[in-house]
Amino acid sequence: MDVKHYLELVRKNQPLVHHLTNWVTIYDCAQVVKSFGASPVMAHAAEESADMAALASALVLNIGTLTPEFVESMKSAALSANRKGIPVVLDVCGAGATKLRDDMCFKLINETRIDIIKGNASEVARIAGADVQTRGVDSGTVGGSLIKIASGLAVERKCTVVITGKEDIVTDGIEFYTVGNGHELMAHVVGTGCMAASVIGTFAAVAPGDPAGAAAAGLCCFEVAAELAVKKAGGPGSFTNSLFDAIYTLDQETVENMKRIGRCAVTTL
Amino acid sequence: MDVKHYLELVRKNQPLVHHLTNWVTIYDCAQVVKSFGASPVMAHAAEESADMAALASALVLNIGTLTPEFVESMKSAALSANRKGIPVVLDVCGAGATKLRDDMCFKLINETRIDIIKGNASEVARIAGADVQTRGVDSGTVGGSLIKIASGLAVERKCTVVITGKEDIVTDGIEFYTVGNGHELMAHVVGTGCMAASVIGTFAAVAPGDPAGAAAAGLCCFEVAAELAVKKAGGPGSFTNSLFDAIYTLDQETVENMKRIGRCAVTTL
Amino acid sequence: MDVKHYLELVRKNQPLVHHLTNWVTIYDCAQVVKSFGASPVMAHAAEESADMAALASALVLNIGTLTPEFVESMKSAALSANRKGIPVVLDVCGAGATKLRDDMCFKLINETRIDIIKGNASEVARIAGADVQTRGVDSGTVGGSLIKIASGLAVERKCTVVITGKEDIVTDGIEFYTVGNGHELMAHVVGTGCMAASVIGTFAAVAPGDPAGAAAAGLCCFEVAAELAVKKAGGPGSFTNSLFDAIYTLDQETVENMKRIGRCAVTTL
Repeated sequence: MDVKHYLELVRKNQPLVHHLTNWVTIYDCAQVVKSFGASPVMAHAAEESADMAALASALVLNIGTLTPEFVESMKSAALSANRKGIPVVLDVCGAGATKLRDDMCFKLINETRIDIIKGNASEVARIAGADVQTRGVDSGTVGGSLIKIASGLAVERKCTVVITGKEDIVTDGIEFYTVGNGHELMAHVVGTGCMAASVIGTFAAVAPGDPAGAAAAGLCCFEVAAELAVKKAGGPGSFTNSLFDAIYTLDQETVENMKRIGRCAVTTL
Repeated sequence: MDVKHYLELVRKNQPLVHHLTNWVTIYDCAQVVKSFGASPVMAHAAEESADMAALASALVLNIGTLTPEFVESMKSAALSANRKGIPVVLDVCGAGATKLRDDMCFKLINETRIDIIKGNASEVARIAGADVQTRGVDSGTVGGSLIKIASGLAVERKCTVVITGKEDIVTDGIEFYTVGNGHELMAHVVGTGCMAASVIGTFAAVAPGDPAGAAAAGLCCFEVAAELAVKKAGGPGSFTNSLFDAIYTLDQETVENMKRIGRCAVTTL
Repeated sequence: MDVKHYLELVRKNQPLVHHLTNWVTIYDCAQVVKSFGASPVMAHAAEESADMAALASALVLNIGTLTPEFVESMKSAALSANRKGIPVVLDVCGAGATKLRDDMCFKLINETRIDIIKGNASEVARIAGADVQTRGVDSGTVGGSLIKIASGLAVERKCTVVITGKEDIVTDGIEFYTVGNGHELMAHVVGTGCMAASVIGTFAAVAPGDPAGAAAAGLCCFEVAAELAVKKAGGPGSFTNSLFDAIYTLDQETVENMKRIGRCAVTTL
């Protein structure tokens, strides 16, 4: 997996990335995709979500402000994406906080093909079957190895699993990546997690057959830009716009010099 | 049509501009109106959209994140606006991407009086009957003369038509304006198109009887401010806030010096 | 009431603040809470709003983009908050503009326990029974004493009442505070009122038994930060992010030096 090559492919192919996402960070999800040179679209009506997914190169689902009807429309979009063979990312935002969130995540995972499951530690642990509590949309404490949780879920669901945190974990059950870029300020900014899912979808759109590599590459580029943005930002307010500016001007050489990606095969862990 | 006079009227009259718009850029639509000194309100419930329209001086409809129920509420608001005689702007956002979008635009145009239809090239071409494809909410390629498409639609629908792009086209089928202000960075910023519709509504609110002139004047002021904002912005993230700042302090003399408006009668084209 | 102590408690306890709020300023409401070091969550589905409220330390309701179904979910969340004994803030956004808004506010106030009613002058006056007109979501003119309106409503409803404006009024019918911090630029920024309600909820979360003091302390900290932010902002666009930055780094000493809080017992007025 070549991070800078995937960045170049996003810029060149300008994939259309369809979202059914939450109302809190929907602008940020759109602008992060656009800042990478790709084309975001947000269309959630049940009457068109499948049609829009059929035009797209990736689909990003985020249950942040879900309703059961909204999830039905997500399902329709995901099935359309499955038919077309484009990657589907599910941000299991707030899983482990309420029964509705757990139920709706399992519904999507069981009834459609989700290619990449993404969340913070307690969200993903909950989807992997652990008895953990998510604090709203902020991660709760998770006992046990996150690597085992991620690879176990990846094998069980035959998908790629991403756990975001200080060091991100990405695995498809065979390949295993860690991404150590980013900055602690990101934890004080609403939307960094949601944007990460949109970036993963954007990179997966240009890397058919390599969702895990694409997810790691996307997170790496996003977080390298975040490190650059922090230097210009005065705090969590000005950070996000600095991040978009940094993504827009991010070059391959900077990514190559700053990337902190670890990699091994899961069997060797 | 006197651009600086219309700007002054907006500042003086502070019109209430009612929106039923999309969830992606709804903040930007509100803040752009407020930055011009006018008063935005967003109220989409079917139980109140007509009442709120009756309090307002203009109504802006944007189908970016439409549902059929939402469009019913738009219709109710538009009929209320029609009864009051205030201008109604329809941003045909994403027309040409899905059947739902086309159907809902035609529903609104056929069943209410839309005073100003606004979109990018492929969106407006689709509403004018062309067989084009919009790429999510980004314009696809359009064959033929945009001027002919715009003036044809304006005559057919007895309304003002605005096609935004590098050079904006505004016509009511008789008067014809081009607006050449703006900056290419705007194409990399989510929400510039939606904000343009809100600005058009704000200016139309203070110019009864001259929707085409108001639309051209509003676009001109918005895009002059954008040119000023680009000088202070580090990229597509910091641009939008710089734009609001520039609009807030925009003065008549700057607009007069920087405006790039072309004008002629359609019959002489 | 010790402003700097309450600020410290927010930072230390990091309360989870649940919102059912509007789609225009939902990001700002989340980020303002997060900038204070607390944890925002937004979850509006009727199927989970009560469960999420049961996890939280305060509940903030804002009817800015209400629908009747949304208000039903607010009611469910409020009843859950009432059972848990956590404070409920209601921002009566746009009360006095349409019948729906008035009806829904009274429904919530009559059918659940609202601990803090917050709005601008004409919004609160309408809830107190005055025959006033709110202009969209901007205050209309109110005759009579705002102090009398606030204390009358507080006594009638046995709750705390907050009227925001150039000088904010906070009273529970016994204690009476004025907060004179802030800056006139805030009136040109969409979302300052909504954020104020979120801040009030955040402070009330850490001050059981003192909703009026918490509301005054929260407004004071928010508006001191706004004064600092204005110095770095170029206008109403850049203001909001500067505000988040200023809140994030706000220290007790600055608050203590800059606070402009008046206080007396209502009976002595």
